[in-house]
Amino acid sequence: MSRFWSSVVHNLSPYVPGEQPKIDGLIKLNTNENPYAPSPHALAAIAATMDRLRLYPDPSATGLRETIAAHYGVTREEVFVGNGSDEVLAHTFQALLKHDAPLLFPDITYSFYPVYCRLYGTNYETVSLDAEMRVRLADYRRPGSAILLCNPNAPTGIALPRAAIEALVTEHPDKLVVVDEAYVDFGAESAVPLVARHDNLLVIQTLSKSRALAGLRVGFAIGQRPLIEALERVKDSFNSYPLDCLAQAGAAAAIKDDAWFQATRARIVASREALVRGLSELGFEVLPSQANFVFARHPGRRGADLAARLRERAVLVRHFQKPRIEDFLRITIGTDEQCSRLLALLHEII
Amino acid sequence: MSRFWSSVVHNLSPYVPGEQPKIDGLIKLNTNENPYAPSPHALAAIAATMDRLRLYPDPSATGLRETIAAHYGVTREEVFVGNGSDEVLAHTFQALLKHDAPLLFPDITYSFYPVYCRLYGTNYETVSLDAEMRVRLADYRRPGSAILLCNPNAPTGIALPRAAIEALVTEHPDKLVVVDEAYVDFGAESAVPLVARHDNLLVIQTLSKSRALAGLRVGFAIGQRPLIEALERVKDSFNSYPLDCLAQAGAAAAIKDDAWFQATRARIVASREALVRGLSELGFEVLPSQANFVFARHPGRRGADLAARLRERAVLVRHFQKPRIEDFLRITIGTDEQCSRLLALLHEII
Repeated sequence: MSRFWSSVVHNLSPYVPGEQPKIDGLIKLNTNENPYAPSPHALAAIAATMDRLRLYPDPSATGLRETIAAHYGVTREEVFVGNGSDEVLAHTFQALLKHDAPLLFPDITYSFYPVYCRLYGTNYETVSLDAEMRVRLADYRRPGSAILLCNPNAPTGIALPRAAIEALVTEHPDKLVVVDEAYVDFGAESAVPLVARHDNLLVIQTLSKSRALAGLRVGFAIGQRPLIEALERVKDSFNSYPLDCLAQAGAAAAIKDDAWFQATRARIVASREALVRGLSELGFEVLPSQANFVFARHPGRRGADLAARLRERAVLVRHFQKPRIEDFLRITIGTDEQCSRLLALLHEII
Repeated sequence: MSRFWSSVVHNLSPYVPGEQPKIDGLIKLNTNENPYAPSPHALAAIAATMDRLRLYPDPSATGLRETIAAHYGVTREEVFVGNGSDEVLAHTFQALLKHDAPLLFPDITYSFYPVYCRLYGTNYETVSLDAEMRVRLADYRRPGSAILLCNPNAPTGIALPRAAIEALVTEHPDKLVVVDEAYVDFGAESAVPLVARHDNLLVIQTLSKSRALAGLRVGFAIGQRPLIEALERVKDSFNSYPLDCLAQAGAAAAIKDDAWFQATRARIVASREALVRGLSELGFEVLPSQANFVFARHPGRRGADLAARLRERAVLVRHFQKPRIEDFLRITIGTDEQCSRLLALLHEII
């Protein structure tokens, strides 16, 4: 520490992302990346934009926002884009989630949420998932300024249907409901169609998972204009150009390539179903996932031990040393070949 | 506005960057971009990284930080990188510049600084430049927690020598001194060599100007480890991966290509000297610039009027509607051809 630190710095406990080691032959099932290369149209668009690098990007990312708006049936003014959904979330915390009454979110969810709360001094309370690791909407009938749900939830993979989200926003018209849909494209229902009729709903998505562009850093939010305006005010007071010109071009091309999107997400969903069967046959309890990962535990083996043994065999999965979930593994859906290799190694280990 | 806005949002007045219009044949001298294409090695490195886009980038940008450290003669732990120097500045405001005593910076300087202050609730006071638009160090002998100087200053282009920065950090050991060196590579002296012996100095640079990578969004800070640690704590509580994999690769290659860097900055400095002579011959008062722009006014013509007439002729320059500088134009150094065209048009107009 240093006498020059602002007071907030002392209390931060930063989020720790899954590791990105450079090990030859590693099977990397720890950070929910897509096992397939992104759309070739995205790569072509990036290559075609390289002659613009000496110029500043469009600070408003107009073309990308128009593409997202057209794809999701909203207007450009209802779309905010940022440097990955993490940056979109950060601006959401600062612009929309700091109030006297607490922000409410599940006890088991994306572990970046409490980190943002410390960064911005946001008052929050966690609401326990039920015994089956599900969000119980009735538990959110308590004082609060806003509700933040990851849907499907991470790391459980369990999704609420769109009708449940609509019931929630309808029941709580004075609470802002933020739905983080990072994993929605692998079988869950997006809340985007609800935005038109609910001014208290903000939906956040990313191109990192279902568009295979984790390396490009593009996320977005969809909501009614006053919510988007708040995000824009904060963004324009923070960094005029968070999306470089390559990211804007590549992301727009990826959104437009619906054939690639439909084909790869169908493959991932099929691989997930096969992996769930295989894990169940090995005696794992697997939560019902609608994401590009599964969350599973074995009655006879500690989670930390399994993760360590897999790591020795060059397979990375994610393990969280946290109450309630310390015996679970979060396993990203890889290719069929990678999933088979994982199952074979688990068969050896168990 | 909306009942869901956090209170901070109401008081923001976002920074407005120079416009990025898409007009054919436009001569764009309004945002201090480099007139030359970036290093071909940077483009090659970006192209070679496109097969990694499905994976998350290195959250610590280790390779890029090592490259910057080696180039500037510091250690990796003394380097922080961010999404353009604007993001580096934003994190600096939050991590290091929020204290009870005011932050001090010039009245005429980069106009994003007061925007950050409003975003983070930072207490600040401005210190007037003298009648010749110079920073007078003696004027910073007043209560304050920190001093922020853009050097060379924007939009004046006037630089303080390194010895003056050292005198300042030595005289104010309990004030953090942040030097924003966005434009330092066009003839001014960097304060980086002072970092080793002063724990109260943080130097911020960008690849947007002298490396011609405005479109890639890479900036960095160099300072002693406790200062860098504060920035990392805030960054890791905000967004794990602000630099995409293409930006990390391209930026590192650009830093390594010193031949390209030396050749292009020499051309820009030579063009600047020619432009200064031409403007002076037209009757302009031109401040002594060590940046890739000049700041000039004509005794007989209003700045807004000149900027508008140039715009009608497809030449963009920057004009600030602000006290003390409303009759100045900030003109980016273009190619010799662009500078000649500007002078010919000004000759017509005046």
